[in-house]
Amino acid sequence: MSQVLETTRNGVDTQVMYGTLDAIKADPSLGRFQFRVHNHWIDGAHNRSTIKGFYGAGQEDTSRAEAFSLDAGEPAVLLGVDTGPNPAEALLHALAACLTTSLVYVAAARKVRLTEVESTLEGDMDVRGALGVSDEVRNGFTRIRVSFKVKGDAPAEKLREVVERARARSAVYDMVTNGVPVEVGVVTD
Amino acid sequence: MSQVLETTRNGVDTQVMYGTLDAIKADPSLGRFQFRVHNHWIDGAHNRSTIKGFYGAGQEDTSRAEAFSLDAGEPAVLLGVDTGPNPAEALLHALAACLTTSLVYVAAARKVRLTEVESTLEGDMDVRGALGVSDEVRNGFTRIRVSFKVKGDAPAEKLREVVERARARSAVYDMVTNGVPVEVGVVTD
Repeated sequence: MSQVLETTRNGVDTQVMYGTLDAIKADPSLGRFQFRVHNHWIDGAHNRSTIKGFYGAGQEDTSRAEAFSLDAGEPAVLLGVDTGPNPAEALLHALAACLTTSLVYVAAARKVRLTEVESTLEGDMDVRGALGVSDEVRNGFTRIRVSFKVKGDAPAEKLREVVERARARSAVYDMVTNGVPVEVGVVTD
Repeated sequence: MSQVLETTRNGVDTQVMYGTLDAIKADPSLGRFQFRVHNHWIDGAHNRSTIKGFYGAGQEDTSRAEAFSLDAGEPAVLLGVDTGPNPAEALLHALAACLTTSLVYVAAARKVRLTEVESTLEGDMDVRGALGVSDEVRNGFTRIRVSFKVKGDAPAEKLREVVERARARSAVYDMVTNGVPVEVGVVTD
């Protein structure tokens, strides 16, 4: 009988993953990335981000043939015409996506086959801050709750360890919980 | 001659805006909102958020007939097959969208007609953190740079004031710079 070496787990080619990790360990400069978004205003609360190029692994990436496009909006109650998820919802998406991908990669590395990963995120906000009505509340969410449902071929305890490791390594979880310095520059001509 | 009272500026109906602000001032409980995202894993770095319901202005909102859908992915160099912007790029989009909408609303309130708002965002990240290769670098961006280009029927000084006020009131800018407490729960059965 012939034997096929199965290297793909949870949709992640673990051979490629280990190769990537080894390459970055050998040359830490390959770990430097820069991600970018270009956004343009359309009308009212409708604006659109285009996302294509980035720098990483020692070079300007050229693998994306087309740019991704993300539209933002606000519902009527927040003065928009619902042209897309609002920015706070987009932030929840970024957090959900990062925790999920981290979880899937960690599981692949730890030989856990996942069958289901779902999450629900809720963020509580008093919009009096962002609308400029009150200085006594913050502008953003006061808290975010993430509820994961995870199934796979490992005991509950191991699945929980995978989620915990994902949380500890997620880029967006780090940014949303700890904050990032942001510089804002303006050109008016 | 008849006269039309023009209440819409920058795509924002300012009469509705002032009415909303007055209503929230009169009954602060109308300012309580909860936004939500549901995410499910598809394969590898591919996962999808659906976004529809939210609570706000004293009730569960039912104005959205369809859910919004946002796909996430990673480029090949980060072990994905490029099924969507990656989570860090999604966070930059959330920040760009929020600053832009804040800017447009502030301009509408201050009687500034905008003709162009564009922004470019860059985030610097050493992926050795998120990949678990190094404990000496953080997982997320070390810094984010936002460059706005703003044009309108006001002097440069006033346009800069509008950007500054938008930054001071943006919900996502607050969250990304100051951080938010995040609880993560897991169910495995």
